[in-house]
Amino acid sequence: MKLSAIGEFGLINRIRKGGLTMAPGVLVGIGDDAAILEPSRGSLLVATTDLLVEGIHFRFEFASPYAIGRKAMAVNVSDIAAMGGIPRYALIALAIPQEIPVEFVEECYRGLREEGSKERVEIVGGDTSSSSSGLVLSVTLLGEVERDRYLTRKGAKVGDSIWVTGRLGASAAGLAALEAGFRIGGEGVEGITGPGVERLTAEERKALVEVIQAHLFPISRVKEGRALTLAGVVSAMIDLSDGLASDLHHVLVESGVSAKIYQERLPLHPAAMVVGRLLGQDPWLYALQGGEDYELLFTSPEEPWRVEGALAAEGFPLPTLIGEVVEGSEGALLMDSFGDSKPLTGGYEHFRSEVKGLRLAEGL
Amino acid sequence: MKLSAIGEFGLINRIRKGGLTMAPGVLVGIGDDAAILEPSRGSLLVATTDLLVEGIHFRFEFASPYAIGRKAMAVNVSDIAAMGGIPRYALIALAIPQEIPVEFVEECYRGLREEGSKERVEIVGGDTSSSSSGLVLSVTLLGEVERDRYLTRKGAKVGDSIWVTGRLGASAAGLAALEAGFRIGGEGVEGITGPGVERLTAEERKALVEVIQAHLFPISRVKEGRALTLAGVVSAMIDLSDGLASDLHHVLVESGVSAKIYQERLPLHPAAMVVGRLLGQDPWLYALQGGEDYELLFTSPEEPWRVEGALAAEGFPLPTLIGEVVEGSEGALLMDSFGDSKPLTGGYEHFRSEVKGLRLAEGL
Repeated sequence: MKLSAIGEFGLINRIRKGGLTMAPGVLVGIGDDAAILEPSRGSLLVATTDLLVEGIHFRFEFASPYAIGRKAMAVNVSDIAAMGGIPRYALIALAIPQEIPVEFVEECYRGLREEGSKERVEIVGGDTSSSSSGLVLSVTLLGEVERDRYLTRKGAKVGDSIWVTGRLGASAAGLAALEAGFRIGGEGVEGITGPGVERLTAEERKALVEVIQAHLFPISRVKEGRALTLAGVVSAMIDLSDGLASDLHHVLVESGVSAKIYQERLPLHPAAMVVGRLLGQDPWLYALQGGEDYELLFTSPEEPWRVEGALAAEGFPLPTLIGEVVEGSEGALLMDSFGDSKPLTGGYEHFRSEVKGLRLAEGL
Repeated sequence: MKLSAIGEFGLINRIRKGGLTMAPGVLVGIGDDAAILEPSRGSLLVATTDLLVEGIHFRFEFASPYAIGRKAMAVNVSDIAAMGGIPRYALIALAIPQEIPVEFVEECYRGLREEGSKERVEIVGGDTSSSSSGLVLSVTLLGEVERDRYLTRKGAKVGDSIWVTGRLGASAAGLAALEAGFRIGGEGVEGITGPGVERLTAEERKALVEVIQAHLFPISRVKEGRALTLAGVVSAMIDLSDGLASDLHHVLVESGVSAKIYQERLPLHPAAMVVGRLLGQDPWLYALQGGEDYELLFTSPEEPWRVEGALAAEGFPLPTLIGEVVEGSEGALLMDSFGDSKPLTGGYEHFRSEVKGLRLAEGL
């Protein structure tokens, strides 16, 4: 169905109908000039926004509208997680080219809603308009956090240990696989297509599916962020969106410190390793500069067993200790197993034409 | 200066520097994964978002980057005003084409900040990315309102009077003047240029400047909205963004009622009348279907003197009583001075190719 057949207000009504019944704390939801929300007593408000632009953050040849919706919500949820907060309400603004069918927009909303519902996020408002060029999707997410419990990029101290949750590099490997022409069709390893796919081993196919899934459907670490926040073991935290090198750099600059990172300790995703070998690319660059893993990077002044305990107690996988905070302003050094070091630089930055090392476009 | 010379993080630093010192209630502002805000005790949160897309909502041939920033903030402030709220915090997301110079982005922010500062709105966060096509500007505004004081589109009752603040039609007349080739250069009526401008009377020049100003720099009615809210005289309220016909329709649908509007009572802006005559267009269509006046439309069960008193007591111009709420679901009727009536329809809607009556693109 064409958008022109139902118009803006018809679209808003369809979006509204797909919504849940009024969630707790929502006094006025979609369909008025603004949403009216009731903050939990005594808690602080956490607010973040992300704009996703066709051709920059996602490409229809790589991702379905459903996947685009899922990811747009996940990356915002991840920003709230990085502050130690609980995501609660979303505002969705969409600019839609005329030729895009209504069903496409509804699929995008289904993705937004499904990803949000994992963390009980309610869509409470937004804006729809036409677009003269590509699709633009803007997600604003509001959350809550206890007073004196929120975590920022500022606060890393000399001597703190540096940690990451999960494994790194899968998302960038997935983007590389998509760019190389691989696609996942249905469920499981059967659906994989791409150049020379019939000659690949079962392990390689499985790895390709895993990394493409990781790129299209990243998992935000809200519950892990909450466990760390409530345990009080973290001094600074950020989510890995631009790549370890770039995101660590933000923490170091804000905190006025430097860092040593031990390359051998980095939890490289096994599937990223397999795909790097397959595509002839360095999988370490996926992990260090690729970005979009949406794991949490944090520093802690506590004994390692206390940090591990904060996550283990809630049943989460153990985080990995990857380095330490040191004095100085020269940034991060990457140490290899021979004790040699080199500056850890690079990562994705908008408007910069060259990216050091592998050129990895930020993309869905 | 080119964006590629300073990169995304250089741009963020320049934006950050332009900001005020930390405003009350802002615990973490620009430069982290999310903002941390302290809501006023006992108040409810008001949240709205608007996406402005180059070629749809604004055109560089009509508006400077500064003007685009001003208007982007004003339209969001207007949404908070329409709920009876106080705007407080803004999140700004920008997608910027490579070729746009840094100074352009800074001018846009200057406009956002200046317009926001009129109502003490603080920019607390956002997102910047490159754009493969046009400029996209997404503003999310958070505000506050007292519990049980907020106003929605729902609540108009049969017998209520219908009111508008200010005068109508100037913004649409301004867009029509811009489309006809008129431009305002410097200050005052001297700066006006356009086809045959040398043959225009002083009154016509002044009217052209006034309507173009009204279109480029709309004034949101926060203080008027607050006065009405606190006086407790309003049953439903909306801001005039899509045109009186369309916005009144929203109130009627949400409230389950119909309306009679008396055409002779509509406060048509005198400059819109002059410009309509000059351009050979019907100025009533500017007022009824043009939109972007950002005045408040509201209904009231109270005696007219009480409604007028709520605004007069605070030194604001009197609002205009334009009609009454009646039973039924047939929508609004426009009554002329002979007692004849016709359905009041039209107004701007995205994705609809034809707009009834005058074709007035929503544009800056």
